[in-house]
Amino acid sequence: MANDRKRQVEQITNMEVDFAQWYTDVCRKAELIDYSGVKGLFILRPYGYAIWENIQRELDARFKADGHENVSMPLLIPESLLQKEKDHVAGFAPECAWVTHGGSEELEERLCIRPTSETLFCEHWAKVVHSWRDLPMLYNQWCSVLRWEKTTRPFLRGREFLWQEGHTLHATAEEAVRETERQLAVYADVCEDLLAMPVTRGLKTEQEKFAGAERTYTIECMMHDRKALQSGTSHYFGDGFARAFDISFSDRDNKLCYPHQTSWGFSTRTIGGLIMTHGDNSGLVLPPRVAPIEIVVVPVAAHRPGVTDAAGELLNTLKAAGFRAKGDFSDNSPGWKFAEYEMKGVPLRIELGPKDIEAGACLAARRDSGEKTSLPLGGIAQAARELLDDIQRALYEKAKKNLDEHTFTAASAAEVRAVVENGGGFIKTMWCGDAACEDQMKEQAGVSARCIPLTQERVGETCAVCGKPAQSLVVWGVAY
Amino acid sequence: MANDRKRQVEQITNMEVDFAQWYTDVCRKAELIDYSGVKGLFILRPYGYAIWENIQRELDARFKADGHENVSMPLLIPESLLQKEKDHVAGFAPECAWVTHGGSEELEERLCIRPTSETLFCEHWAKVVHSWRDLPMLYNQWCSVLRWEKTTRPFLRGREFLWQEGHTLHATAEEAVRETERQLAVYADVCEDLLAMPVTRGLKTEQEKFAGAERTYTIECMMHDRKALQSGTSHYFGDGFARAFDISFSDRDNKLCYPHQTSWGFSTRTIGGLIMTHGDNSGLVLPPRVAPIEIVVVPVAAHRPGVTDAAGELLNTLKAAGFRAKGDFSDNSPGWKFAEYEMKGVPLRIELGPKDIEAGACLAARRDSGEKTSLPLGGIAQAARELLDDIQRALYEKAKKNLDEHTFTAASAAEVRAVVENGGGFIKTMWCGDAACEDQMKEQAGVSARCIPLTQERVGETCAVCGKPAQSLVVWGVAY
Repeated sequence: MANDRKRQVEQITNMEVDFAQWYTDVCRKAELIDYSGVKGLFILRPYGYAIWENIQRELDARFKADGHENVSMPLLIPESLLQKEKDHVAGFAPECAWVTHGGSEELEERLCIRPTSETLFCEHWAKVVHSWRDLPMLYNQWCSVLRWEKTTRPFLRGREFLWQEGHTLHATAEEAVRETERQLAVYADVCEDLLAMPVTRGLKTEQEKFAGAERTYTIECMMHDRKALQSGTSHYFGDGFARAFDISFSDRDNKLCYPHQTSWGFSTRTIGGLIMTHGDNSGLVLPPRVAPIEIVVVPVAAHRPGVTDAAGELLNTLKAAGFRAKGDFSDNSPGWKFAEYEMKGVPLRIELGPKDIEAGACLAARRDSGEKTSLPLGGIAQAARELLDDIQRALYEKAKKNLDEHTFTAASAAEVRAVVENGGGFIKTMWCGDAACEDQMKEQAGVSARCIPLTQERVGETCAVCGKPAQSLVVWGVAY
Repeated sequence: MANDRKRQVEQITNMEVDFAQWYTDVCRKAELIDYSGVKGLFILRPYGYAIWENIQRELDARFKADGHENVSMPLLIPESLLQKEKDHVAGFAPECAWVTHGGSEELEERLCIRPTSETLFCEHWAKVVHSWRDLPMLYNQWCSVLRWEKTTRPFLRGREFLWQEGHTLHATAEEAVRETERQLAVYADVCEDLLAMPVTRGLKTEQEKFAGAERTYTIECMMHDRKALQSGTSHYFGDGFARAFDISFSDRDNKLCYPHQTSWGFSTRTIGGLIMTHGDNSGLVLPPRVAPIEIVVVPVAAHRPGVTDAAGELLNTLKAAGFRAKGDFSDNSPGWKFAEYEMKGVPLRIELGPKDIEAGACLAARRDSGEKTSLPLGGIAQAARELLDDIQRALYEKAKKNLDEHTFTAASAAEVRAVVENGGGFIKTMWCGDAACEDQMKEQAGVSARCIPLTQERVGETCAVCGKPAQSLVVWGVAY
């Protein structure tokens, strides 16, 4: 029969041997993505997209609870509109995809596919904002954006990626800064609570800021290979865009003012972060709260009478209790199934065979530790809940341990470089605040300034590069 | 103070005088859309997008309940890929937007922004479908598509519009046809149950079919001005795409076969349908099930002690009971508020003033009929539920009455034309099945074949155009 056509669970590259290849292998073998015919444009397959839907649901609920409303802005930006804010266009124009023809006709002005939508929001606001009564504007949109990158990798750097971009407008600078910080806190929470990825919160240096921003806040996560992944950013624009786009409002005293603006984004990039934070040599490992399938039920010796029925009943019990549960009743071997759902990172596998049924129990195997526990069939929901909660906690703790064990302090560029050459990590140094020193550190140690942490410490008194009095602590690292 | 800056509820054009201008006025004054700097690309403002989110939620749940999975396909299609299926490219190439440059470099091959994604799904399936075990593939995606139309109107015809596109692949023709019909039924249900728009289900004629389809099913709705709006289509492709893209699978007997394919789409166009089905001269009228705000609470004589508190309490009671309720506690006058929420089509307005509070009651005003009822504050949730259910029902019945009263039968093109000249409607005639007769009817009566209804009747024995024996009943109309 057609058994020869059953899919094989193929081997993936060992992550300690070639982390980059391991990553690509997991993206494909766990069926998260496929490549399309255009370099850097990836297909999110059902399993990959389901992870994104879980992240979306959580973020969207939080945004709405804070009074934000979703909108849909156009896909295309006229070149003249993009040019209105000079820092912004300088940052984005070099990587825009340009539409030059509509049907058979050449356009009078070329249009870029949005790399981000600040200019579109500003153009709209200039029309609809008049009074202090119209503020704040708390908008968000879910969409994809295009940036014509040279080097591309699934999730981490695509020419197209999915994200949400929040855009808000406020009467005062204080309120806008508060919004910027609040959204960073939302991102940090979602990273830590949902994705089990501990974050370092901080400000970007002048050089690393978003094009056009006065201040960029970031959360930085440490991957298994100790590299840093920027996982969410929140920008405070001051009134720069408002002035460039002529957005003004009359305040309560009928005085004409420029409003203050923010934007903040969280993208499918974090799915890459999930893979590189929790994955292992058997494939993906997903925190239960974001896993499309929390529990997979696998019947063992399914040909024996009563096994399939009992497994089906168990599955229904789990579904009724609200778990995202799936049963695999195909004629693939249990061994094949074990490997398949390990590759897909399903947090909990429940095996049920004739002996288990006789004993009124089932065998639960944790994806994170491999540990197996016998669970009573009566009260299975409660037991599964506890195990999943423990897996969620354990994954966070393991990632936190990786972060803590590979966070170092250094007093010179040479010391930073030594850490990088010794396997890498996050390296804290003091800094004078001078861009020249940041450049030198980059050049001499091969790292970039990940952030100026919001929680500052003093690990010395002088800049690790120039030796002048230090202004702030910086976290350095090699970044994705 | 700043009272002069309060927004005014402006007059809209009378719908009986100029229906097209009335429609545009409602789109703007109800704050559903705004124009962007690019013709045909519209901004969906929060209130417009919230309607779309309600439609999405309902459709998405139905798709998933039937086993469909969401994916994300790329935005861009290489020209060579679009050309693989000849009917398809002939239909879409003339209205594609073309990307020719990435950053500062000219692309080797130009890329079109997806006008629809059949070709992308096919390219992916050719790689991942091998065995009967891989079928069916039941995919859906939520996205925007671009079609470079000459004439554009908010919601009805945009160069960009939001939609979902379902794409499925099946082992047999029977199964694929069943899927095509099932999705049409889902669309019909959502139109009737959620949007209160009665539908006519049917097949498109050869000429009106989707580019590349063997069969296109459609639901057609009658607008207030008696014109037809195609509100959802479902296509059966046979194995034409599979052959063109070399998608094959080995069946249970290890024989290589081509799978059969479907696609189906439902778009923001139906929001235009909502407006034109239910709206009136005070603005939008929304069926409660799709309304972003089901109930608005307006305090009357809010300066009197206790009124604002009581209104706030009432609002909380309604929210706790699960209604999408909003209170307007601004210092605008009650009259201004009444007009504002009438413009926005909020199904139920609840007014609460000192006398109501004294009587333990409030005044509920229906948006559809204007009827006012006094409701007891105790048991308000139950009373509001009943009123909203009745509004939903009444809107459907009113639209059904419009459809029934303006559906005619005719025996000749001249009779069809007479109906059109007399205010229009849906006109049923018999048809021989010949495209030449369809063209003649178009030319002579100024109508297009809306569909060949799934429920056939015999209103005559001969074709209304040529007099030859009739093959089927056709519904004609003037379409958006």
